[in-house]
Amino acid sequence: MAVKDVLARVRLHAKTVPYPLGVKLVGSTAKDTYVFPPDLDVFILFPPDVPRSELEKHGLALGRKVLGGEERYAEHPYIHGKFKGFEVDIVPCYSVDDPSNLKSAVDRTPFHTDYILSHLKQSQRDEVRLLKQFMKGIGTYSAEAKVQGFSGYLVELLVLRYGDFEGALRSAKDWREGLVLTLTEGGSRRFASPLTFYDPVDRERNVASALSLQNMAIFIRASRECLNHPDSRFFFPEPRRDWSRAHIAREMRARGTKLIVVRLPRPDLTEDNLYPQARRTLEGMQSTLESASFVVLDRSFSITRKTIDLVMELQAERLPAAMKHMGPPVTNEHSGQFVDKWIDAALVPPFIENGRWVAIVRRSHRTAKELLSNEMQKAALGKEMKGLKGMRVFSHAQLLKSGPRGSITELLDKTAPWER
Amino acid sequence: MAVKDVLARVRLHAKTVPYPLGVKLVGSTAKDTYVFPPDLDVFILFPPDVPRSELEKHGLALGRKVLGGEERYAEHPYIHGKFKGFEVDIVPCYSVDDPSNLKSAVDRTPFHTDYILSHLKQSQRDEVRLLKQFMKGIGTYSAEAKVQGFSGYLVELLVLRYGDFEGALRSAKDWREGLVLTLTEGGSRRFASPLTFYDPVDRERNVASALSLQNMAIFIRASRECLNHPDSRFFFPEPRRDWSRAHIAREMRARGTKLIVVRLPRPDLTEDNLYPQARRTLEGMQSTLESASFVVLDRSFSITRKTIDLVMELQAERLPAAMKHMGPPVTNEHSGQFVDKWIDAALVPPFIENGRWVAIVRRSHRTAKELLSNEMQKAALGKEMKGLKGMRVFSHAQLLKSGPRGSITELLDKTAPWER
Repeated sequence: MAVKDVLARVRLHAKTVPYPLGVKLVGSTAKDTYVFPPDLDVFILFPPDVPRSELEKHGLALGRKVLGGEERYAEHPYIHGKFKGFEVDIVPCYSVDDPSNLKSAVDRTPFHTDYILSHLKQSQRDEVRLLKQFMKGIGTYSAEAKVQGFSGYLVELLVLRYGDFEGALRSAKDWREGLVLTLTEGGSRRFASPLTFYDPVDRERNVASALSLQNMAIFIRASRECLNHPDSRFFFPEPRRDWSRAHIAREMRARGTKLIVVRLPRPDLTEDNLYPQARRTLEGMQSTLESASFVVLDRSFSITRKTIDLVMELQAERLPAAMKHMGPPVTNEHSGQFVDKWIDAALVPPFIENGRWVAIVRRSHRTAKELLSNEMQKAALGKEMKGLKGMRVFSHAQLLKSGPRGSITELLDKTAPWER
Repeated sequence: MAVKDVLARVRLHAKTVPYPLGVKLVGSTAKDTYVFPPDLDVFILFPPDVPRSELEKHGLALGRKVLGGEERYAEHPYIHGKFKGFEVDIVPCYSVDDPSNLKSAVDRTPFHTDYILSHLKQSQRDEVRLLKQFMKGIGTYSAEAKVQGFSGYLVELLVLRYGDFEGALRSAKDWREGLVLTLTEGGSRRFASPLTFYDPVDRERNVASALSLQNMAIFIRASRECLNHPDSRFFFPEPRRDWSRAHIAREMRARGTKLIVVRLPRPDLTEDNLYPQARRTLEGMQSTLESASFVVLDRSFSITRKTIDLVMELQAERLPAAMKHMGPPVTNEHSGQFVDKWIDAALVPPFIENGRWVAIVRRSHRTAKELLSNEMQKAALGKEMKGLKGMRVFSHAQLLKSGPRGSITELLDKTAPWER
């Protein structure tokens, strides 16, 4: 079997390293709670007194010998590759005696594996698989930045906490934001997260820290609806189909609102770096629009192989000539500069409103497209997107004619996966 | 002279009252700091052990015998009338031994008069008159609800604090919001007001409590500009002239924005009650518009003899068919009702956004006029205006053709009084 083979190979090569190493299968394959396709996670445990540089050097070399593969980076670097058709990670870590003495975050993983192996009953393994597949189906599975959902370990803890799949759903349907869960006893730290689940192997850690309120709410909703109308579509939804141009045009005519898309070339980043930066850039686009009084009704982003599409729905894409330009408080000692600047240039020269200087000025960009093309670089953007190199902005009319149907459907189609 | 005559008459009638009364001229006439036309304020001081009902009965009867006049109400009732061409108030109050033992707010006034008489130098009286006339000219004189400006007593204290008119302006040009002023020493209470001036006769009181940030800022601005370019127009500005219909139309064409007016019949209230209610109703109008995603650029109200005009400038007066309708958090136990209500009725049935239910619904009122005509009564409004009886709403087109030019000019003309 692939698992045995890969472990045997790692152990063989481990003997050539001048430290006493442990080799341990961890993760869902070790716990027998994986959903298809399983990933193999092999950890190489170094004694805690080995310098970090030595751990990285020997750990990566060992991984490369077994997998070839590529170097990736969590907190330590590790090697990712393929072995007999399976995705495999070979991860060097420290073998610590207690999870309160971690030398890095990955050192905790073997403890998680041991905890689940010793607490999860045989019969509960399939319950974990059910709940994982449910989470996958509704789109809330994975703690990665791309998803911001439930990690595999969190799913296992939920089954331990509620006994089985159905128990977890019956509880989730009544969850409130700010819920705090424990298996044994909680820690003393309080988290601002929408859900806190104190890690039984490290009580000052929240296993649900990556979970967004949005995904928590989707899980609550799906739990309610699945309990009322169980259906395999919660586990295996139909893929979303892109709307046709005619469908998009019909929808926009009914709404009377306007679309705008900013398209950026996709920077060469891992998904864990890319998604947060795309979200920040989306925020920057929205703040650029709103600070010029455009009303943003909805927004989303889509990442394709080559591009990032930032999509917004606006109340109007063209605004009147005049806009209010807020200046400093009259009490500000430099406020005279605002007055001097606008005294002749404004449509209505500076006057006082609630203690602040205000002028009514001619809008420099009447349309959202012009505004974004010229002003977006002033907003807070993702680090690798600050230059906005290669940015293109598409107006409503352009989008109806030849816009990216996938990205537009992503915004307009509010159907849940299980409703398709 | 009118002052001597009115005091003699009050003293004569006071002898018929079965309590030992004091009669005292107070206010700017007593302090010789009035600006034309002077008001005469005559206080009748009752012993503190007289019941309030007796004070009111005898005090008002005495005032009526002297003035005829009408009953008005501050904290006590008092009599207002005319005497030899002057406006006169005859006000019953308690003669307390110390301002820390007030039985009502008006009891403090005689102490203010005494304080100014004993501290303001002869030569400073004209400085007070100058500053009062300046405040009048720039529109910031009076602590009444209508103005929210500087009281006469506050102007006197400013002259005491800064020596003379010019000293006050030289200081004011650098004032900051939150400034705290004292003559001797301040009290322990902290006020949220933009300006605090601890009352030298009652240190836990802020003499500037009625002053709005807006009027403080206008005074700061006018001080700067008058010091740079002294001009009689700061003291005696030209009246504002209503813009012609052609001027209004030209201005609105240049701005591209839209006007809307809500006109209400003027309720029969004193100005001190009417102005706060008109402001609250203006807020209600704005919140009605903004909660339906109309963008309000500017607003004002004008009170005429018969009407209250609430005037707003909008980015657009007509919005697209679709609007976002925010529902409860998904975690709310009654959130199912929102879903049931909108599942068939919405343009886009309920979906989750950042943990909350949201639907895209058909706007029930596409124009600001329709919206205000139908929904304004749901907002928080002035107490006597809640019924919105007799309300009329005027659209942009109607206003250009036949709207109230005075109220519209009030909104559009941002010229300061001294710039006219």
